[in-house]
Amino acid sequence: MRLLFIGDIVGRSGRAIVEEKLPGLIEQYGLDFVVINGENAAGGFGITETIVQNLVDAGADVITTGNHVWDQRDAMVYCERQPAFLRPINFPKGVPGKGANLYHARNGASVLVMNAMGRVYMDALDCPFHAVDKALADCPMGEFADAIILDFHAEATSEKQAMGYFCDGRVSMVVGTHTHTPTSDHRILPTGTAYLTDAGMCGDYDSVLGMDKEEPIQRFLRKVSSSRYTPALGAATLCGFAVDTDDRTGLALAAEPVRIGGQLSRHIPSFWEKSGN
Amino acid sequence: MRLLFIGDIVGRSGRAIVEEKLPGLIEQYGLDFVVINGENAAGGFGITETIVQNLVDAGADVITTGNHVWDQRDAMVYCERQPAFLRPINFPKGVPGKGANLYHARNGASVLVMNAMGRVYMDALDCPFHAVDKALADCPMGEFADAIILDFHAEATSEKQAMGYFCDGRVSMVVGTHTHTPTSDHRILPTGTAYLTDAGMCGDYDSVLGMDKEEPIQRFLRKVSSSRYTPALGAATLCGFAVDTDDRTGLALAAEPVRIGGQLSRHIPSFWEKSGN
Amino acid sequence: MRLLFIGDIVGRSGRAIVEEKLPGLIEQYGLDFVVINGENAAGGFGITETIVQNLVDAGADVITTGNHVWDQRDAMVYCERQPAFLRPINFPKGVPGKGANLYHARNGASVLVMNAMGRVYMDALDCPFHAVDKALADCPMGEFADAIILDFHAEATSEKQAMGYFCDGRVSMVVGTHTHTPTSDHRILPTGTAYLTDAGMCGDYDSVLGMDKEEPIQRFLRKVSSSRYTPALGAATLCGFAVDTDDRTGLALAAEPVRIGGQLSRHIPSFWEKSGN
Amino acid sequence: MRLLFIGDIVGRSGRAIVEEKLPGLIEQYGLDFVVINGENAAGGFGITETIVQNLVDAGADVITTGNHVWDQRDAMVYCERQPAFLRPINFPKGVPGKGANLYHARNGASVLVMNAMGRVYMDALDCPFHAVDKALADCPMGEFADAIILDFHAEATSEKQAMGYFCDGRVSMVVGTHTHTPTSDHRILPTGTAYLTDAGMCGDYDSVLGMDKEEPIQRFLRKVSSSRYTPALGAATLCGFAVDTDDRTGLALAAEPVRIGGQLSRHIPSFWEKSGN
Ligand SMILES: [Fe+2]
Ligand SMILES: [Fe+2]
Ligand SMILES: [Fe+2]
Ligand SMILES: [Fe+2]
Ligand SMILES: [Fe+2]
Ligand SMILES: [Fe+2]
Ligand SMILES: [Fe+2]
Ligand SMILES: [Fe+2]
Repeated sequence: MRLLFIGDIVGRSGRAIVEEKLPGLIEQYGLDFVVINGENAAGGFGITETIVQNLVDAGADVITTGNHVWDQRDAMVYCERQPAFLRPINFPKGVPGKGANLYHARNGASVLVMNAMGRVYMDALDCPFHAVDKALADCPMGEFADAIILDFHAEATSEKQAMGYFCDGRVSMVVGTHTHTPTSDHRILPTGTAYLTDAGMCGDYDSVLGMDKEEPIQRFLRKVSSSRYTPALGAATLCGFAVDTDDRTGLALAAEPVRIGGQLSRHIPSFWEKSGN
Repeated sequence: MRLLFIGDIVGRSGRAIVEEKLPGLIEQYGLDFVVINGENAAGGFGITETIVQNLVDAGADVITTGNHVWDQRDAMVYCERQPAFLRPINFPKGVPGKGANLYHARNGASVLVMNAMGRVYMDALDCPFHAVDKALADCPMGEFADAIILDFHAEATSEKQAMGYFCDGRVSMVVGTHTHTPTSDHRILPTGTAYLTDAGMCGDYDSVLGMDKEEPIQRFLRKVSSSRYTPALGAATLCGFAVDTDDRTGLALAAEPVRIGGQLSRHIPSFWEKSGN
Repeated sequence: MRLLFIGDIVGRSGRAIVEEKLPGLIEQYGLDFVVINGENAAGGFGITETIVQNLVDAGADVITTGNHVWDQRDAMVYCERQPAFLRPINFPKGVPGKGANLYHARNGASVLVMNAMGRVYMDALDCPFHAVDKALADCPMGEFADAIILDFHAEATSEKQAMGYFCDGRVSMVVGTHTHTPTSDHRILPTGTAYLTDAGMCGDYDSVLGMDKEEPIQRFLRKVSSSRYTPALGAATLCGFAVDTDDRTGLALAAEPVRIGGQLSRHIPSFWEKSGN
Repeated sequence: MRLLFIGDIVGRSGRAIVEEKLPGLIEQYGLDFVVINGENAAGGFGITETIVQNLVDAGADVITTGNHVWDQRDAMVYCERQPAFLRPINFPKGVPGKGANLYHARNGASVLVMNAMGRVYMDALDCPFHAVDKALADCPMGEFADAIILDFHAEATSEKQAMGYFCDGRVSMVVGTHTHTPTSDHRILPTGTAYLTDAGMCGDYDSVLGMDKEEPIQRFLRKVSSSRYTPALGAATLCGFAVDTDDRTGLALAAEPVRIGGQLSRHIPSFWEKSGN
């Protein structure tokens, strides 16, 4: 089974590259299931229902989020009627929306997608490790799910790596988001889980985190905010993580990053190219 | 001019890969100047004078550090007599050691190396932007230095990217350290500075930040420390950032990551391979 | 019913004032129940079983703790056999010890004592609000408990005040600890809970948080640790919070701070003096 | 010389108590010099030029601020033409406004007022210790200043206490602000500086930090922001720190807190009452 995870979409530029490239990637490489982190899709702050719908139309099966999930305030409402939309699972009880859900892939398989948020240098939600553990107990891989994807939205590399090993053997793919910077430590952990500390963003990398760089630089220099952050508008790089799984076990057979367009070095997974149409 | 920066060495395993591979890399690819971040070389915590010497013997021209700089307490003493040793430049006045120094490369060129520490999610040292700005004013590239390297030891990707653009056109290479996770956002910024958010560590990646993974995982689960952190002992990956500079301007001509050995996908810079002996 | 809470004991000096003064206070003012935060009693770091026993011998009914609870490593063992010992209730499941317990006061009444830890600027334990809520649901005041005391060990005044109002009407006394600085915002909240943001420490106030001041000052100036923190050894002030409750409802009738000895201005609750033997 | 410092004014309720009480206090107790922290005077967020003027009209000689200093954006402009207005001294060079200034008291004496901001759990400005040290070197007490007041706007009690001892003997009064909670650790340090960890706020204490309590409580419970913070509107307590100094040395002769009105226990300094008109 062929999975693609795409990292935080930042603003118009990030949406454009995804909407332009994703349909062709699905077609050309036979992608079975696509998850996109969309927490910065609306001008850098949250995501509107219309954008959720546009991304689904472009081929996304699931939209995950993170600390910016509620920046667009009607997300609290539409999250309940958009099954493709996930918010971090470790919000306290009673918060609207879901943090894990079972989906049907194009190939008929069932895929559990979980979205969790780290707590190191971030707000103290409930424990992401226990929340993920419980979701996995409710829907174990090989039994109720043919593949399982965890988007772990976290700042600290330590917490992300710990989560990777915590899930190893129980999840197809643990992929980090939030730093907006792709890492190159992709690997298959000892018991079969594909791991990448951060998928990177889909946005203009001639920027600070996808935002126009003047304001963040002057804030570091002067410690005063002069204006709002706005997304950088140059050509975006689509960044993601591609994993092929064993249909029987759900574990990873191959795992490589994806980088297309914009400022970063291009990378198409070697196992995609071998099998492309 | 051919520069190589090597990320945080973690413990015995990290030292082993560097001491094994570095002499051959220098020889085979004609490296002119090598900087290594050694802040975790001594069992994960700081670096001893003996290890500094061993790394210099293996081919390092400069050893940079970070928040762990003083973990081995005699570093406060030997830092004054080891010109190859740098501590972050933005410690308050009066702290022993240097944070920037001018060195002679194998090819006779002069190279300014700076080591600075970020402040987002880290201890509040003096402003790294102003400290770097001052060091660059004292020794501008093209005038007193043929190339300039900045190791920016920081947690937040925002602060690292802001520093990259702040130095763009004034420095040959801005490379991040501290997260122990290599990023794949290497690029040459608009005005000629090679940039990489994090070089990654030299250590065993089957770990949490190079440390044996049991203790960090159980700390996340139980919020209790059971024992000390100890370096993981499996085969290490040497991670670094390779930059070729223009001899006249000091600006970057080519920039790619280096990953050799261990768990991560191997990468030798394409411009090294074209020119290797 | 007459309750006394005594704030974080710091080192030998803090233990001395409590062991010297507490028996007389109990006798003179007819205290029914005494809770002491002991997290810094052993040289500033944690508390030994012997010190727990000594404080109980001096008149403490319960010893609460905080972020330093496990600094003395055998606390993990003795916490299970010392019913007077509480650790923060919001540690993850499976951690030894208890965070809430029902005790019998000298007057025969039953008192629920809870110890919880904040998360703002502190490690992310489980949610203290939900943990306290659950403990109160299990043992409501007026039904199973004649009085209820919450030691909320937290850094941020916002979190402490929010906890006070969250518990208002359900608890006799919400008292903060951890900052080692007594506040003067004691009051009875609208629905009857006595509240004080921080009880302050029992230690030598000619210090930084009860520790000898040279090392912390030089760390702020130089950002380098030169030696260990050691408790200041001058005369300590006993700091606490005194609350008289309605025997029927458990709610507060009167609430004032206690400050005896050492550097701070002396304060004995006016309602104690009216009723002293 | 008789000094009064008044803590963070929060919103309309805080302004009202100060404007109502301050003229009478000055008159009745013969106050020579009054400093007010006004960083939350405008609806909780910053201070307008009109409010600065109103407070000066009510008797304030200086208005200090803190992390909220620029919340009202024209503060960047009016700070330059309002000599009574101070912003934290440890903003980077080039930021508008002043962080220390010499003023003339009603009794003809000259008073240096400094405003600095802490860095523990706050944004990393320049080092407050070095900034204060430099300001004191430029204008030493007993030479150019008859009295010196430092408003140290900081979160951590450790940093505030370290600052107190750092200034001991060189400053008349070191008073903390920012936590909006008055402490009762007022004392005269060994070399003559009056010290109080936090002056507390002027605002409605039936609140969380002076703000209506519903929104902050629900944010702790749900980790979601539902609406803006707005100041609580009940009767405010005026909180401050009163210090009498030796006219010759500038050192403190007496130091006690002030609490008038609202929810907190009333306190008028005993040395005021002895000398009141
Ligand atoms: Fe995020
Ligand atoms: Fe994001
Ligand atoms: Fe490191
Ligand atoms: Fe580091
Ligand atoms: Fe504590
Ligand atoms: Fe404590
Ligand atoms: Fe304030
Ligand atoms: Fe503040």
